[in-house]
Amino acid sequence: MSHPHPELGAAPALKEGALRITPLGGLGEIGRNMTVFEYGGRLLIVDCGVLFPEDEQPGIDLILPDFSSIRDRLDKIDGIVLTHGHEDHIGAVPYLLRENPDIPLIGSKLTLALIEAKLAEHRIRPYVLEVKEGERERIGPFDCEFIAVNHSIPDALAVAIRTPAGMVVATGDFKMDQLPLDGRLTDLPAFAKLAEEGMDLLLVDSTNAEVPGFIPHERDISAALRNVFANAERRIIVASFASHVHRIQQVLDAAHEYKRKVAFVGRSMVRNMGIARDLGYLKVPGNLIVDVKTLDDLPDKDVVLICTGSQGEPMAALSRMANRDHQIRIVEGDTVVLASSLIPGNETAIYRVINGLTRWGANVVHKGNAKVHVSGHASAGELLYFFNICKPRNLMPVHGEWRHLRACADLGIKTGIPKERTVIAEDGVVVDLVDGVAKIVGKVQAGYVYVDGSSVGDITEASLKDRRILGEEGFISVFVVVDSSSGKIVSGPTIQARGSGIDDSAFVPVVAKLQEALERSASDGVLEVRQIQQLVRRTIGKWVADNYRRRPMILPVVVEV
Amino acid sequence: MSHPHPELGAAPALKEGALRITPLGGLGEIGRNMTVFEYGGRLLIVDCGVLFPEDEQPGIDLILPDFSSIRDRLDKIDGIVLTHGHEDHIGAVPYLLRENPDIPLIGSKLTLALIEAKLAEHRIRPYVLEVKEGERERIGPFDCEFIAVNHSIPDALAVAIRTPAGMVVATGDFKMDQLPLDGRLTDLPAFAKLAEEGMDLLLVDSTNAEVPGFIPHERDISAALRNVFANAERRIIVASFASHVHRIQQVLDAAHEYKRKVAFVGRSMVRNMGIARDLGYLKVPGNLIVDVKTLDDLPDKDVVLICTGSQGEPMAALSRMANRDHQIRIVEGDTVVLASSLIPGNETAIYRVINGLTRWGANVVHKGNAKVHVSGHASAGELLYFFNICKPRNLMPVHGEWRHLRACADLGIKTGIPKERTVIAEDGVVVDLVDGVAKIVGKVQAGYVYVDGSSVGDITEASLKDRRILGEEGFISVFVVVDSSSGKIVSGPTIQARGSGIDDSAFVPVVAKLQEALERSASDGVLEVRQIQQLVRRTIGKWVADNYRRRPMILPVVVEV
Repeated sequence: MSHPHPELGAAPALKEGALRITPLGGLGEIGRNMTVFEYGGRLLIVDCGVLFPEDEQPGIDLILPDFSSIRDRLDKIDGIVLTHGHEDHIGAVPYLLRENPDIPLIGSKLTLALIEAKLAEHRIRPYVLEVKEGERERIGPFDCEFIAVNHSIPDALAVAIRTPAGMVVATGDFKMDQLPLDGRLTDLPAFAKLAEEGMDLLLVDSTNAEVPGFIPHERDISAALRNVFANAERRIIVASFASHVHRIQQVLDAAHEYKRKVAFVGRSMVRNMGIARDLGYLKVPGNLIVDVKTLDDLPDKDVVLICTGSQGEPMAALSRMANRDHQIRIVEGDTVVLASSLIPGNETAIYRVINGLTRWGANVVHKGNAKVHVSGHASAGELLYFFNICKPRNLMPVHGEWRHLRACADLGIKTGIPKERTVIAEDGVVVDLVDGVAKIVGKVQAGYVYVDGSSVGDITEASLKDRRILGEEGFISVFVVVDSSSGKIVSGPTIQARGSGIDDSAFVPVVAKLQEALERSASDGVLEVRQIQQLVRRTIGKWVADNYRRRPMILPVVVEV
Repeated sequence: MSHPHPELGAAPALKEGALRITPLGGLGEIGRNMTVFEYGGRLLIVDCGVLFPEDEQPGIDLILPDFSSIRDRLDKIDGIVLTHGHEDHIGAVPYLLRENPDIPLIGSKLTLALIEAKLAEHRIRPYVLEVKEGERERIGPFDCEFIAVNHSIPDALAVAIRTPAGMVVATGDFKMDQLPLDGRLTDLPAFAKLAEEGMDLLLVDSTNAEVPGFIPHERDISAALRNVFANAERRIIVASFASHVHRIQQVLDAAHEYKRKVAFVGRSMVRNMGIARDLGYLKVPGNLIVDVKTLDDLPDKDVVLICTGSQGEPMAALSRMANRDHQIRIVEGDTVVLASSLIPGNETAIYRVINGLTRWGANVVHKGNAKVHVSGHASAGELLYFFNICKPRNLMPVHGEWRHLRACADLGIKTGIPKERTVIAEDGVVVDLVDGVAKIVGKVQAGYVYVDGSSVGDITEASLKDRRILGEEGFISVFVVVDSSSGKIVSGPTIQARGSGIDDSAFVPVVAKLQEALERSASDGVLEVRQIQQLVRRTIGKWVADNYRRRPMILPVVVEV
């Protein structure tokens, strides 16, 4: 297995006739998927998504891939292939198009509709090229063929990229449901054909490589949903992802069967379901859908609400219902279904919502107590099938944390891919395909780019470190006014503390002590600002550590008048 | 089902002949278990544990039950029964004994040994009464009988408390492994006998009530462990809880079988395993254990390390190994086993450790990819057995979040416990047992008491709110010096910002604007401190919101000289 060496240097110039693959996101994390392909001085990008922040990134809204390694070549990008419409694959497109709005977007009908709706909010109208499974398009020097794959959103595509350096296949996200709701299978015969021609490198979705066996069919959920509908006494509230058309289709079908009306709640849910319906991906029987405002006219037992917030997002409708901070007041007998995954890192938030809803008397159905969710990513059993059909000469797991990448590589090796031909890379690691062999050759900058409020990239790791300290320990500001000529203290020290948990009155003795120390030092000569700051930091810091065993941020401010 | 009403008032005086049950922790959360029993003016406490903080409680070390409802009656407590030695059942004992060191502790041999070791660190020597399963002790007016239960620590006990008001049984934590490693079963015949006599109220561990079926046997793990030992090429590092004697016993047995030496790493692991060994709970074959310092003399393939840190605790050995910040340097071929649960809320931290170890080339075995952990709490199938044997007249689920309490009550109702005799309470809700009926009668104060550094209880919700804002958004301090007689600005505004992500130089225009606004206002007359503060807050706040869409904490400080 080829690992990136910790002291990996910058990538050398690309050899003529070679293909360079540089993942800028999605390797070592689940999110912000983006891979750059380079051949003959031209670039093709596959996916351009966002990563959602964790506790380690307090206050951050979104995390983008770092575009700095391609920023000077934005005019050399022949297109961005979008494999499907999930945020972690399309969410960063507006930020890249801001820098060059002329880059064409290539994707399926639904994928393009979703990114166009998003770009409209950013006031960008992109150049688009709609493609379908089975089609082949030349995008600069990149000869791209699109293959149908099954995932938790309709119309997902894998892409086979042919250049004189060889054929690389990127699966995008996929699984292999053999009884998909829309009949659109992951096209294994097409992959077999590519294998026959010779698949030089396979970039494969590794998210579920640690999960043994096979993912149940999406349609298996229908039994659990029907069971909910058969037993619900009052309202049914279903939370799901706003892009999971098939999941929501099944809720609509159950509602139709049990003669309930359905209202969509939440901006993204209403928007996406409108798009899916208009384009024919969501089939809505007769007058099933009603406006949420008309619900009061219907008896509770005739109502289904479909909303977002299944990940415990505090501002979403579901969290607000759990806190009784929403017009829909949960009462005993309501049923809430979380027909969704439990994304690692969100557990605490999700359980908080479940507990809140339960406390108001709702019966909460979730993947922990009923079969109301199946994953969208191929698990170990499916990946084995896939590798045996694709027979790739080189394997590079993508879309995963280290544990997933490694498990995926191990599965590939089990099916006969030579160990030395499996490449475990991380974001920024440059892989060249030369003479049919994929090898790590260097690295480029691929750090986190933070979106916070309206700005992109001005929050640094140093600001985040400050936030973490402030969030854990609070701070103590100490103001001292000194006379600029005599160096004497005119006023202060004045203390202001927040989040330290130390009462203002508790500072009285240390202020006296500090004052004394300042005066004593001043008697030896005029104090410089830096000396005063040092004295403040040392005196207050020691006092807090001794008396409270805490380490708040200490900020001395010295003003000369 | 009896739910606590949101507007529940204070509890009335206890009727003569009635028994009062007040949970001060463990209901609505998993942790800080503590229940107060009151009869005839005397108190008995069952368990006194800590809760570990979540993200919502930044910087907090521990959370204690709120003792305020019993603080004026500390001399009326006849004893604290400790059901077993886990932190969430014994961790708050030192804090209660600080207030009255004369309260006797009642528990099994191992439980008392663990709490005594902990109290020694707090320099407290408690009065103890050692009890065994099958024994009966009168503690004040409370006639207590102890029953063996099986859990993830040896020597756990349930307690049946008889008073003239009836018999209440508190299970403590338990499961019903039918092939326990030490042969000590949850004593169902004893519970059956209590049922025959008449169990008026059952307080039952609800943690796994949502989990269908049965928990696998602890000894089933041995197969997965042996598989690890048979295939490991170099060192084996096992992380587990420092109290899980049976789990560690199985690691020792596997090490013995595969002729490896074992070293314990970490203070609590070394201490607890010493206690367990001395008391005969841990059987250590011959010269199996070596000091960690001697490991360098052994080939890697002869070594097993057992350490803590299985929950991703950043300061524990395992996290530090994952970050290459520990003398034990993980290399390709090492095997790390997380033989432990994945406590909700810890996922991100645990996966970070797994990814870090994988990145250095370790093969990481965890409950997600091998059968190296089983839970310590009875699941739904076991609870059904238990209810059918105990036939309680009233049921009160404990040791769970709302979702667990509700699921547990639902199981009880299915076995025939009348719905109106199941009580879902939360912390502080007072339940009286009168004439054989358990009813919610009121509530007492039961908020979180925070331990931060060396202080208990001086961190308030307001400090935590400040910390959350500071952690998400940072702060901007604005310092203005005014002449006390003229009201004119002598110096400033001086700005100091941290964690806001706004560069110091960016403030120049707004400082000028603020200065202007202050001068303009001052020309209308002398400005009061409060007016200056308001002006600062409004001007800076609006500028940050307009330009950055952020809301940092803004702190104006006005000093008069």
